[in-house]
Amino acid sequence: MAELIHVPDAADPRLADYVRLTDGQLRRSLEAAEGLFIAEGAKVIRRALASGHLPRSILMAERWLDSLADVLPALDCPVYLVSDATAEALTGFAVHRGALASLTRLPLPDLPDVLASARRVIILEDLVNHTNVGAIFRCAAALDVDAVILAPRCADPLYRRSVKVSMGAVFAVPYARMTDWHKDLSQVRAAGFRLLALTPADDALDLEDAVTSSGGKVGLLLGSEGDGLSSHWISEADAAVRIPMSPTALAKGVDSLNVVAAAAIACYTLTR
Amino acid sequence: MAELIHVPDAADPRLADYVRLTDGQLRRSLEAAEGLFIAEGAKVIRRALASGHLPRSILMAERWLDSLADVLPALDCPVYLVSDATAEALTGFAVHRGALASLTRLPLPDLPDVLASARRVIILEDLVNHTNVGAIFRCAAALDVDAVILAPRCADPLYRRSVKVSMGAVFAVPYARMTDWHKDLSQVRAAGFRLLALTPADDALDLEDAVTSSGGKVGLLLGSEGDGLSSHWISEADAAVRIPMSPTALAKGVDSLNVVAAAAIACYTLTR
Ligand SMILES: C[S@@+](CC[C@H](N)C(=O)[O-])C[C@H]1O[C@@H](n2cnc3c(N)ncnc32)[C@H](O)[C@@H]1O
Ligand SMILES: C[S@@+](CC[C@H](N)C(=O)[O-])C[C@H]1O[C@@H](n2cnc3c(N)ncnc32)[C@H](O)[C@@H]1O
Repeated sequence: MAELIHVPDAADPRLADYVRLTDGQLRRSLEAAEGLFIAEGAKVIRRALASGHLPRSILMAERWLDSLADVLPALDCPVYLVSDATAEALTGFAVHRGALASLTRLPLPDLPDVLASARRVIILEDLVNHTNVGAIFRCAAALDVDAVILAPRCADPLYRRSVKVSMGAVFAVPYARMTDWHKDLSQVRAAGFRLLALTPADDALDLEDAVTSSGGKVGLLLGSEGDGLSSHWISEADAAVRIPMSPTALAKGVDSLNVVAAAAIACYTLTR
Repeated sequence: MAELIHVPDAADPRLADYVRLTDGQLRRSLEAAEGLFIAEGAKVIRRALASGHLPRSILMAERWLDSLADVLPALDCPVYLVSDATAEALTGFAVHRGALASLTRLPLPDLPDVLASARRVIILEDLVNHTNVGAIFRCAAALDVDAVILAPRCADPLYRRSVKVSMGAVFAVPYARMTDWHKDLSQVRAAGFRLLALTPADDALDLEDAVTSSGGKVGLLLGSEGDGLSSHWISEADAAVRIPMSPTALAKGVDSLNVVAAAAIACYTLTR
């Protein structure tokens, strides 16, 4: 049974896993150094535990105890009970949604292992926005994509906001991280995937035509929010494909779809 | 020519339009009371001005002056020059992206006026997330949707984060706000629109089939992030339609697409 411990002081070192959750830079280095990640809300915490992640601790206001009553008896970690004021002073935001958990990261599978059992994969280059990464995992789970491959610098799926927006899909959709941005895409191609580079560029093929002609395994390449896909990745792909946009879009200031919208349309098109 | 004024003190009342930009509750009441909204970054500010919004003031670090050098001469409002520390103390976040502008809201067009010239509209019920609202306007601009209709309680497209995520599409895609949640949907139908209620429910029609059979004007109804569409709106619609999801999605914790993903797929399907 998890041990319940009241902690009044936000500076108590036992709460260090939860410090300044809104400070991206600090969290990235702290979570990498400690090998931890944070899950938010009973539903997502349950998914994290069910997928084999060991809890380091749980943090919540006492009134949320019931929301995790079913899992607490089997856990072997401290549960820190704090006031709302302590939680806010510690994390930097008002923790309204219930419990937080700090969990141990699992080693990620290797690229070949993830590819071996997949037919459709999404490959993300240097996305910076964690909400976008989480929403794309949710699309993958909903729209029959078997796995996600991340470029070395793509934002972390286990960052708190990614986890939350994904509804926990980051625990259910297998993913691997490339170690070599320059060379690893060719591994995916060598594994039999036809690589489609998604780009708003005018000279790209219509997505629909490209998909009709790819029967087998497919990898969808998506680029960063600002600059899009690198020219290296576009040139490594089998085809550059575009989702046609309105002729009036540019006049309205819109030169591309948001990357989640593009991912959703591309995954959906693959499933039809 | 806009007047340049150095303001050292974050508490200076001339900067009141920019106070605590990350405090949603405060901003909503302040912006409604003053009839203002905030635009962020030179590109979006330029779009806001070009669409006829009058600036109340501009706020920036002096080093960003060049980014708006082309528009400042024609403006007739103060430009407050502040240090990074003052900007952060005032707004509550590190203003890295350049200038902020406070602009006057324009009166919104009436529902009948917006409907009169539209063929495809998106109708948002009680969305709460401003990022989602902005991203849906961007989809509308990119994917040939003529207008957006908002339920009385749907989140504000002119909230800072909506504006930013939309790339300024909130200034280019006409929109109206319903005054009567219960009755106004029937106005849209009376104007000749076939209303498709988007829902992940199993018994809904396949989106693709519903769209093939709607030749004329179409309204796509999208529901809130938490509860989805109300049963009242679903019953008012001509059909409930779903984007088919993977049979394994539920086991992965995913019971629906994120609303931006659903909007993107639905708009795209309409254009094909
Ligand atoms: C915000 S966009 C990047 C925009 C960037 N200016 C560019 O030209 O790629 C982020 C990603 O979404 C995808 N994307 C956006 N709009 C698209 C479209 N119309 N067709 C295909 N992919 C698109 C691409 O993968 C792109 O790298
Ligand atoms: C996050 S979902 C809401 C989920 C809510 N539990 C429900 O059952 O509607 C937000 C909105 O996205 C749209 N949506 C999400 N998944 C969808 C799907 N598979 N088919 C059609 N619309 C969907 C619907 O309009 C929904 O109201």
